[in-house]
Amino acid sequence: MNFRDTLYVNENGKLIIGGVQASVLAKQFGTPLYVLDKKHVENMCDVFIKTLSKEYPKSLVCYASKAFSCKEIYRIINSKKLGIDVVSNGELYTAKSVDFPMNKAIFHGNNKTANELITAVTNGVKYVVLDSYYEVDLLEEICVERGIKQNVLIRVNPGIEAHTHHYIQTAKQDSKFGFSISNGDALEFIKYVLTKKNVNIEGLHCHIGSQIFEEKSYVICVEKMTDFYKLLKQELSLTLPTINLGGGFGIWYNDEDKKTTLEDYANFVKIIAKTLKENVKAKGLTQPFLILEPGRSIIGEAGITLYTVGATKTIKDLKNYIAIDGGMFDNPRFALYQAKYTVALCDKANLEPVKKYTVAGKCCESGDVIAEDCMLPEVNSGDILAVFSTGAYNYSMASNYNRNLVPPVVMVEKGKAKYIVKPQSLDDLIRNDV
Amino acid sequence: MNFRDTLYVNENGKLIIGGVQASVLAKQFGTPLYVLDKKHVENMCDVFIKTLSKEYPKSLVCYASKAFSCKEIYRIINSKKLGIDVVSNGELYTAKSVDFPMNKAIFHGNNKTANELITAVTNGVKYVVLDSYYEVDLLEEICVERGIKQNVLIRVNPGIEAHTHHYIQTAKQDSKFGFSISNGDALEFIKYVLTKKNVNIEGLHCHIGSQIFEEKSYVICVEKMTDFYKLLKQELSLTLPTINLGGGFGIWYNDEDKKTTLEDYANFVKIIAKTLKENVKAKGLTQPFLILEPGRSIIGEAGITLYTVGATKTIKDLKNYIAIDGGMFDNPRFALYQAKYTVALCDKANLEPVKKYTVAGKCCESGDVIAEDCMLPEVNSGDILAVFSTGAYNYSMASNYNRNLVPPVVMVEKGKAKYIVKPQSLDDLIRNDV
Repeated sequence: MNFRDTLYVNENGKLIIGGVQASVLAKQFGTPLYVLDKKHVENMCDVFIKTLSKEYPKSLVCYASKAFSCKEIYRIINSKKLGIDVVSNGELYTAKSVDFPMNKAIFHGNNKTANELITAVTNGVKYVVLDSYYEVDLLEEICVERGIKQNVLIRVNPGIEAHTHHYIQTAKQDSKFGFSISNGDALEFIKYVLTKKNVNIEGLHCHIGSQIFEEKSYVICVEKMTDFYKLLKQELSLTLPTINLGGGFGIWYNDEDKKTTLEDYANFVKIIAKTLKENVKAKGLTQPFLILEPGRSIIGEAGITLYTVGATKTIKDLKNYIAIDGGMFDNPRFALYQAKYTVALCDKANLEPVKKYTVAGKCCESGDVIAEDCMLPEVNSGDILAVFSTGAYNYSMASNYNRNLVPPVVMVEKGKAKYIVKPQSLDDLIRNDV
Repeated sequence: MNFRDTLYVNENGKLIIGGVQASVLAKQFGTPLYVLDKKHVENMCDVFIKTLSKEYPKSLVCYASKAFSCKEIYRIINSKKLGIDVVSNGELYTAKSVDFPMNKAIFHGNNKTANELITAVTNGVKYVVLDSYYEVDLLEEICVERGIKQNVLIRVNPGIEAHTHHYIQTAKQDSKFGFSISNGDALEFIKYVLTKKNVNIEGLHCHIGSQIFEEKSYVICVEKMTDFYKLLKQELSLTLPTINLGGGFGIWYNDEDKKTTLEDYANFVKIIAKTLKENVKAKGLTQPFLILEPGRSIIGEAGITLYTVGATKTIKDLKNYIAIDGGMFDNPRFALYQAKYTVALCDKANLEPVKKYTVAGKCCESGDVIAEDCMLPEVNSGDILAVFSTGAYNYSMASNYNRNLVPPVVMVEKGKAKYIVKPQSLDDLIRNDV
């Protein structure tokens, strides 16, 4: 297992992350523990921002907060000159608490509350991304009251559903998000938004899926979107200065996924930039400002979770269970999506796998499993288990189910480790109880 | 819709819970809002404890905390003379914070940590329910160090899987919980536990499933369990004074479920008591102390969740979406289990349903849906929507996904409403951030 220079197994079979031995982190900070490799987050930011600013200078990369949000991540994102997208008052509040520049924040969501729209507008976010008639009426009212003109993007569906290695083109798209281009809904909505005086359409936004490894998906997406920009120009004499193509770049969870390298991510960006430039030229459009929104790919592989193995249980001729001190409360993705993770024993990572194990969580629920059928060396109680690629949608989805505490987050860099999110206390659980 | 005298639709089409108009609660406390009907919780406690103490006096009903845990629920449970089962330090801590008697607490879990076992033992819980070899070794060590003898139950699998209206008998049971009776694992484990000096086996515990409506499941369970008690008597001369038959009584979520009445729950208890007495007599056993552990059935139907409808969206010839101000962060059960809920418009509950709606949550995730294909009257932005039977596994599974705030919990009784869990604040989100 040699993922990168900041995550590898050394000659003694010890898993090392950010220059620190994983099992030492477990001992020092306890388990369960989220660990984040700062260097990898920075490298991922760099690959997106450097490639894009070279290939398409009129652009912004926005980190999708929902993948992982806390104060420190916004400090890093800001230091790397990325923008952010946020989807709630909570994300915006967290970003603002470390003085993240709000003019580099984009506010998304299929159902922003009035309160969230007020927060967005009064904080001067770069764009509100409109997703419904209800919302534009509400936003106009809020803006009129405050004498503000708010720039917006419109969420549209280009009729591509991309998943992992496949994509589907659909005429009708069943999604709670956005307006379909192909059935005319998007055009109709844009006409409606144009009647609003305090809402200014700057561009369109789309997001075609998650865990995409297939560059063709993005090529088709750019074609469909620029076709629509052309149509808007022809039909409404509308030239939109901005295009937001969302994110969705796949990350490695297990060997069914491609091990995407930094070069592969750069290549995604290059292809998007190239395709956009070509289409803009061919269709006689004004070159728009381009926004990309990677979230998972920036943070996902940077994170690992450490657990201590407790109970082990063999059901004769059936299954070997190992139970960890975490579970669906810190990582609900197996329970939610049957997500497949790769696991390793932190101090035995060079030993030959000899047995198939199911990694069970500690929640009182049969479905609380983290990984199934993992080939591992003989596992003993007390072993430290690492689950890889848990940087995205783990801490952000964590709960207090079974009144377990959300694990803290430790950031590692050059052999040093520090809390970026401290442990919850038992008192935190009853803080709001009457 | 006339669920019970504390939950019904009045002649003006207004939904009333605990004597309060639901839409008034929404206005007073905001949405999303969890509402709990105290009287129904008390009635459910009563039906279990009164029936059982009449039919089988040597008994205890324990409320399964994992369904819903906060200070106030433990006060109610205690006032009704029930015990509790807990599965974590967090649940125990919450119960203890309102002086819940620890000698009526049972500590469950497939992988209790050393810290949890120490907490259990030093607080004098009634039983620790053992679930692995690792755990009994750990417990013995902890007890020896402290000069304590701890009473325990052993989690066993009787080889019945009961789900909803069906049950399956299996020889090999694939579960992270317990030890199989049929393959000899349970017997072997009990022999091992008997070698421990500071751990005293008081009885066995089983839990055959969730959402069970079929009494036959419990009859078979009692037969299998008492067969094993007989075997233990014959093979090991072991007479166990206690039997814990768990819970799993089904509740109504939607019309695919039986609308179980208080009498139906009483009937479950009567059948279990009767079957146990008959089997004990027939098999020449000493009558054991009986424990039942309903959780969901006590709290589930007592709870509703109130949301405000924001965006509405019709995708031509395909679907009508209505978006609420909550979602999978306050109720992940649709995303996790495709759980089916019943919904109603709080102030239009007597109007004819005219359209099929999908209720979407506000999280930035396509799968964030609360209910699909619900027939409702015409829905408008601003309408208050109630989701029924959300008392169990909603607040307890809530997260801050998308940095949304966990909704507060209001308890209603005789026309009055009060917070039992206050709203989270934005500061709560960053409390532990460094």
